[in-house]
Amino acid sequence: MEKKLRGVNLGGWLVLEKWMAPSLFQGAPANDEYYLAYDLPEPEYQARILVHRESFITEADFLRISAAGFNTVRIPVPYFVFGDRAPFIGCVDYLDKAFSWAKAYDLKILIDLHTAPFGQNGFDNGGLSGVVRWAQMPEEVEFELTVLERLAQRYAGHEALWGIEVLNEPITEGEVWNSMSPMERFPARDATLAEGSAPITLSFLQTFYQHAYHRMRSYLRDEHVIVFHDGFQLHAWKEFFIRNDFKNVMLDTHQYIMMAELAGTEQSLEGYKVFIAGLGKEISEVAKYVDVFVGEWSLFNSYAVGTDTKGGINPTQEEFSRTRSLTKSELEEIYQTLWRASITAWNQGEGHMYWTYKLSIDTINEPAWYGWDSWDASRAMAKNWIDPNY
Amino acid sequence: MEKKLRGVNLGGWLVLEKWMAPSLFQGAPANDEYYLAYDLPEPEYQARILVHRESFITEADFLRISAAGFNTVRIPVPYFVFGDRAPFIGCVDYLDKAFSWAKAYDLKILIDLHTAPFGQNGFDNGGLSGVVRWAQMPEEVEFELTVLERLAQRYAGHEALWGIEVLNEPITEGEVWNSMSPMERFPARDATLAEGSAPITLSFLQTFYQHAYHRMRSYLRDEHVIVFHDGFQLHAWKEFFIRNDFKNVMLDTHQYIMMAELAGTEQSLEGYKVFIAGLGKEISEVAKYVDVFVGEWSLFNSYAVGTDTKGGINPTQEEFSRTRSLTKSELEEIYQTLWRASITAWNQGEGHMYWTYKLSIDTINEPAWYGWDSWDASRAMAKNWIDPNY
Repeated sequence: MEKKLRGVNLGGWLVLEKWMAPSLFQGAPANDEYYLAYDLPEPEYQARILVHRESFITEADFLRISAAGFNTVRIPVPYFVFGDRAPFIGCVDYLDKAFSWAKAYDLKILIDLHTAPFGQNGFDNGGLSGVVRWAQMPEEVEFELTVLERLAQRYAGHEALWGIEVLNEPITEGEVWNSMSPMERFPARDATLAEGSAPITLSFLQTFYQHAYHRMRSYLRDEHVIVFHDGFQLHAWKEFFIRNDFKNVMLDTHQYIMMAELAGTEQSLEGYKVFIAGLGKEISEVAKYVDVFVGEWSLFNSYAVGTDTKGGINPTQEEFSRTRSLTKSELEEIYQTLWRASITAWNQGEGHMYWTYKLSIDTINEPAWYGWDSWDASRAMAKNWIDPNY
Repeated sequence: MEKKLRGVNLGGWLVLEKWMAPSLFQGAPANDEYYLAYDLPEPEYQARILVHRESFITEADFLRISAAGFNTVRIPVPYFVFGDRAPFIGCVDYLDKAFSWAKAYDLKILIDLHTAPFGQNGFDNGGLSGVVRWAQMPEEVEFELTVLERLAQRYAGHEALWGIEVLNEPITEGEVWNSMSPMERFPARDATLAEGSAPITLSFLQTFYQHAYHRMRSYLRDEHVIVFHDGFQLHAWKEFFIRNDFKNVMLDTHQYIMMAELAGTEQSLEGYKVFIAGLGKEISEVAKYVDVFVGEWSLFNSYAVGTDTKGGINPTQEEFSRTRSLTKSELEEIYQTLWRASITAWNQGEGHMYWTYKLSIDTINEPAWYGWDSWDASRAMAKNWIDPNY
């Protein structure tokens, strides 16, 4: 690419996460998208989804994102995007609208298939907490491929398409599975449904990526990028990319300070800077054999929040008491510093996409959310914490 | 006031107007807030209202409004704000939240009682189209006074309170009633309910304003402003303000280019500038005996839209075909010019509050809405049409 990706994720819109729009889950025990559909009476579920989709992200957001200096949006979509998996409601008409908005406001879209039936990571953001069985179910693997095919077919002719990402954050075996421990961090509601959950092998994932590539490439144009998430193993892909003769692919790696904290990074500005600079070096290593970008990242960190969030455990899961509050100017200093350090590191590769553009949380009336607004690029811009044009 | 009011209305949030959030009305024949409650099954109605109120205006909007340079928000509330008029759902908890956000982001609030049972103007924005009977029903007049009293009591102690407006746009008799013709522009769905509709006399309105003033003033502090809408007769109030010894009151006048168009103003930039400059002179006349501000206004005009909108008839009522489209830079020129002319005029008084902050319309996928984004200050800022700091 001549120009680096300067992107932002439209998280929480077509794929729901409770912490990103808690009011959608009001009165329901559900902790994820899957159970929301089961907990609410159908008309109520439909009404909430309708108004959410119509209002959470709109034309005005595309206008603002573009005016702020971003050039790309990454749009997470669920496996039921085409409306063929009741009781979940399809959303491809909203994706269509997004493409028109992107074209009108000169943005490119990375479609990100963010969930898979029966789970590819067990995270709440995978749609079904504590269940990781998708890769073991050949018919669901095939279903996922048909979704990708249909997305490629539908949007290949649209000038706002930048690329399609095969699958978000498939969790791989080994150290990743142990340190991320989705089964503990996002307990399954139904133990029977979770039974047999297991991490995905790299060899399965690579085969799946190959199939996805070929089935999409036949519809996509050469300039469209097919994106593979690294499965949380940034350095496991060299041989894969050398062995396969892919046209225009990129590797997506997600880098969160909170995950570095879980791995022992010191909770201080200096500690974070060391971590980020190290990542920059790693990215430049990987960039020698494949184009790589940071498709999710955030300024969120425990130091600025004023308490150890234990890897980003949030107020819908557990309430923390803060040990200190920083001043407005201290926060500006921290976030601006981390923003510049991060962008410098991410631009060792092809660029970056912030997680996320918007959160429906209330940090004033619900002080437990203090500090969580750093996840929200729209607020971070208004607070002068980030500069998309840096 | 030392500093002029630089405000924006949070229209369409706690008082619904179909054109401001058409998707809320999806599948219902209702053209106003009143019938939406009757057309939708109760759980669906409640779910839509919940998600709308939680998402249409949030903490992030107060942050952005403040960061942009506004100092005040005017918040329309319905007569059922306290939840004592089923089937309508109270919303005072959202007003409470708004006060916390305003305090946190250094904004002041003008509470605007925007509707009355059985209608004070028959407009869709009065909640019940084509019905103007409130003033003839003593028990409903008294009810409205109790709402004002309760608002004054609840927020008098809150430092974000700037003032309370007694009643939005009561339609008065004579030329106003004839030219605005609410019964024709917003036909009643139920002729029986509309029967006996009639404009409000100035003498009734003045008595009502006196009662409202005294009942609120006993709760409010001296610095809180009690606001009276001019009933669309800017020059009818001199004697009223001289006769009454009010403490800290202001007159609110609403000035829309589209109404000037209805009255014959030429649909051109020059025509609008003449109209606006004339209003500036009128405002400075009135300001000699009472503080006056423009509590609603907009840059929306037929010239920029490219078709005669016949007084702002919108695509939920009728579809127009455009006769021409202006370029991006032509639109910038028009809106920036009108913004500066308007602010200069309005600051002959105490300042201004734009109508409105946000609209959920889609001008890209639904081209009938082309040009209607000038009503939306959040978009107008991103498009560089307006400068709240001017």
